[in-house]
Amino acid sequence: MPSRPPLTPIVEALPATVPFVGPEAQQRASGKPFRARIGANESSFGPSPRVIETMAAAARDMWMYCDPDNYELKAALAAHLGVDIGNVVVGQGIDGLLNIAVRMHVAPGDAVVTSLGAYPTFNFHVAASGGRLVTVPYADDRENLDGLLGAVRREDARVVYLSNPDNPMGTWWEADEITRFVEALPETTMLILDEAYGETGPASAMPSIDTARPNVLRMRTFSKAYGLAGIRCGYAVGEAKAIADFEKIRDHYGVSRMAQIAGLAALADQSYLHEVVAKVAAGRDRIASVARDNGLSPIPSATNFVTIDCGSDGAFALKVLQNLIARGIFIRKPMAPVLDRCIRISVGLPDELTLFAEELPGALAAARR
Amino acid sequence: MPSRPPLTPIVEALPATVPFVGPEAQQRASGKPFRARIGANESSFGPSPRVIETMAAAARDMWMYCDPDNYELKAALAAHLGVDIGNVVVGQGIDGLLNIAVRMHVAPGDAVVTSLGAYPTFNFHVAASGGRLVTVPYADDRENLDGLLGAVRREDARVVYLSNPDNPMGTWWEADEITRFVEALPETTMLILDEAYGETGPASAMPSIDTARPNVLRMRTFSKAYGLAGIRCGYAVGEAKAIADFEKIRDHYGVSRMAQIAGLAALADQSYLHEVVAKVAAGRDRIASVARDNGLSPIPSATNFVTIDCGSDGAFALKVLQNLIARGIFIRKPMAPVLDRCIRISVGLPDELTLFAEELPGALAAARR
Repeated sequence: MPSRPPLTPIVEALPATVPFVGPEAQQRASGKPFRARIGANESSFGPSPRVIETMAAAARDMWMYCDPDNYELKAALAAHLGVDIGNVVVGQGIDGLLNIAVRMHVAPGDAVVTSLGAYPTFNFHVAASGGRLVTVPYADDRENLDGLLGAVRREDARVVYLSNPDNPMGTWWEADEITRFVEALPETTMLILDEAYGETGPASAMPSIDTARPNVLRMRTFSKAYGLAGIRCGYAVGEAKAIADFEKIRDHYGVSRMAQIAGLAALADQSYLHEVVAKVAAGRDRIASVARDNGLSPIPSATNFVTIDCGSDGAFALKVLQNLIARGIFIRKPMAPVLDRCIRISVGLPDELTLFAEELPGALAAARR
Repeated sequence: MPSRPPLTPIVEALPATVPFVGPEAQQRASGKPFRARIGANESSFGPSPRVIETMAAAARDMWMYCDPDNYELKAALAAHLGVDIGNVVVGQGIDGLLNIAVRMHVAPGDAVVTSLGAYPTFNFHVAASGGRLVTVPYADDRENLDGLLGAVRREDARVVYLSNPDNPMGTWWEADEITRFVEALPETTMLILDEAYGETGPASAMPSIDTARPNVLRMRTFSKAYGLAGIRCGYAVGEAKAIADFEKIRDHYGVSRMAQIAGLAALADQSYLHEVVAKVAAGRDRIASVARDNGLSPIPSATNFVTIDCGSDGAFALKVLQNLIARGIFIRKPMAPVLDRCIRISVGLPDELTLFAEELPGALAAARR
C-alpha cells in the first residue's frame, strides 16, 4: 500500500462517520417524502414575505462577493440590540460561530464543559480542536447551572456552553438565574450562551446585554423564529475585544451576500417576527394538548418545539419516533440517557400538527406492541 | 485589569488586523460608489438567467436547513466530472474548503509550501493552524513548479498549494506540466490544486482527473465563471478517503440550501457558461489592448482578469491603482515583490472596460507626476 498524506493527530483520531442525518437522507432511503417536516426546529411559517421578495430581487446580484465586513447587517443588529457595532460579529449561523469560538479558545487537552445531551454540533467542534469534553447531566430536564459551575471550577474549563432556552428539552432559566451564573464564572472561562431560541421565549429569560464583560459570547440566529435556516446567518454579541478576536481566524468572505441581505431584511420586519412568535406559542400549546390527549407529558417549552416525555425508557421513545417516521412524520428525539425517554416535535403548520395528532395514537400503539 | 479568557497560543500570536478589504469598505470611506467594479475577479456577466430564476423561486423555501449531504449537487458534479459521488465534497467556496483541508493536514509547526504572492486566504488558514509557511518566488510571472517541488522536499512539507490558472498573475501551466509535478511529489505531501479559474482557461491546462491518487485535492468554484461569488459554493475532487476525511470536521449544515440550489442550476446551464467564457476571452483581449495602447505590458491570462505590468516598480503600480480608484475604478494589484509592479483588472462589462480605457491614461499621468 502506498503511503499517503497524514491527517493531523487530532483529526486522525476523530470518528469517520458523523451523526448529522438530515430528513433528505431519510427521504432518499425510504423513497417517499415526509408528510410533515417537524423534526429540525425549523420555522414552517417561513421567512417574512418581505424577506422572500428581497432575496428574489437580490438573486441577480449574486455575482458579487459579500461585503467581508458584514457592515450593514452588523450596524442594524447593533442598533437593534443597543450595542456598539464593535460588539457584534456575523457568522454562518451559530454552527459557524461555534466553530470559530472553539478554535479561538480551546487548545488540545483544554477542558470544555457542557450538558450531557446538549448541542452535538458544539461537541463536534470541541473534538476537532482536541478539547476534552466534560459533561454535566441535566437536572429536572433543565441544564444544571450549579453542576456546570462546579465542573468549570473543578476542571479549570476554558469554555462552558449553555443554551437558554434549551435544546433539546425546550426548558429555560430566567434572566436573574443566568446573570447569577455569569457572575459566578471564573473570569478566565468563556461562556458561550446559545440563544438560538431567544425570540420565542419569555422576555424575562433574556438578561440585559453587558458588553463590558469579556467572558460571555451570546449567540443568536436567523435560523429559528426568523425562518432562515437554509441561508446560514447568525451573530455573536460580546465585549469588543472578544468580538474583534474573531477577525483573526474567521472566513472573511464566508457569510454569503444573500445571507447578509436576508438577515438585514428579516431584522427590519419585526412585526412579522411577532406574528410568528404568536403562532409558535399557539403551536406549542397544540402539541402539548395532543401529547396529553395521548397520556404523555409535554415539557414546558420556551422554544419553537415541544419535547414530550413518553413515560418510559429510551428504547420505547425510539420506537415511537420510528413509528412516526414510518408514518411520514419527520421528528427527532434526544439521545442522551434520561432525556432519551422523550421525543421532540417542532411547531409546524397547523396541517402538519393535525397529521401529528392523527398519527401519534397509532405510533404509540405500535411502539407498545 | 481583570483577567479574561485566554486565546489559544496559536490564535493569540495571530495579527489582530487582517488584509481583507472589500470594495464596499472603500465605498463607505470615500462616500461614493465605484463606477466600475473590476477588482475582485467576479463575473460581471452575472449568473445564468435560469439560475437567477431558480434562486428567486427558492427564496420561500429558505426556512429549511440544507441537506447536510449536499447530495443532489454532489451527484450532479460527479456525473459532470465523470467521477464517483464519493470523490466530491462541497464547501463554502474554495475559501471554506481550504480552511478545512488545512486543518486536516497541517499541525502546528508543519511546513506548508506556496508561491510568494499567491492566494493570501490560503496563507491565512495556514497561520490559523500554526503551520510554517515556506514561500517560493514566481519565475517569469508563473508559479515555479521546480522551485515548489524543491521546497516540498527540503522542508518535508505536509501541503503544497498551487493555483492553475494562477491568481494573481493569470498565467498557467499546461496539463502535462501539472501531471509531471504531481508525479514528482512525495506521496505524503498533499497538493491543493486550486482551479478556481479552470473554466476560463484552455482545456489543455486541465489534467485528467485521477481519483486513485490520495495526495491531490482539486478545488473548483461557482464563484468565477458561473457568476455566483456571493453565494459561497465550491467543491473539491479527490481520492475517496481524502474526500471522506472532510466529514470529520466540516460544518455539515454549512453550505446553504440556496448555495446548493444555485450550484445545481448553474451546472445544468453549460450553454450559458460557454457564452460567459467567450465574453471573458473577448474582455481579456480588450483589457490587453487598452494596456498596450498605454504603453503597458499585459501578461497572457487564462483567467477572468488580466494582470498588467506597469513597467516600473511596486510604488509606481500602487500609484496607478490609487489613481484608478480615485477615478471610481475598483481594481486590485499583487503586493509581493516583483509581482507588485503590476495591476490586476477583472473582465467587467463592456461599459466598465470603456471606463477603464477612459481613465487609465489620466491615472498613469497622475502616477508619473
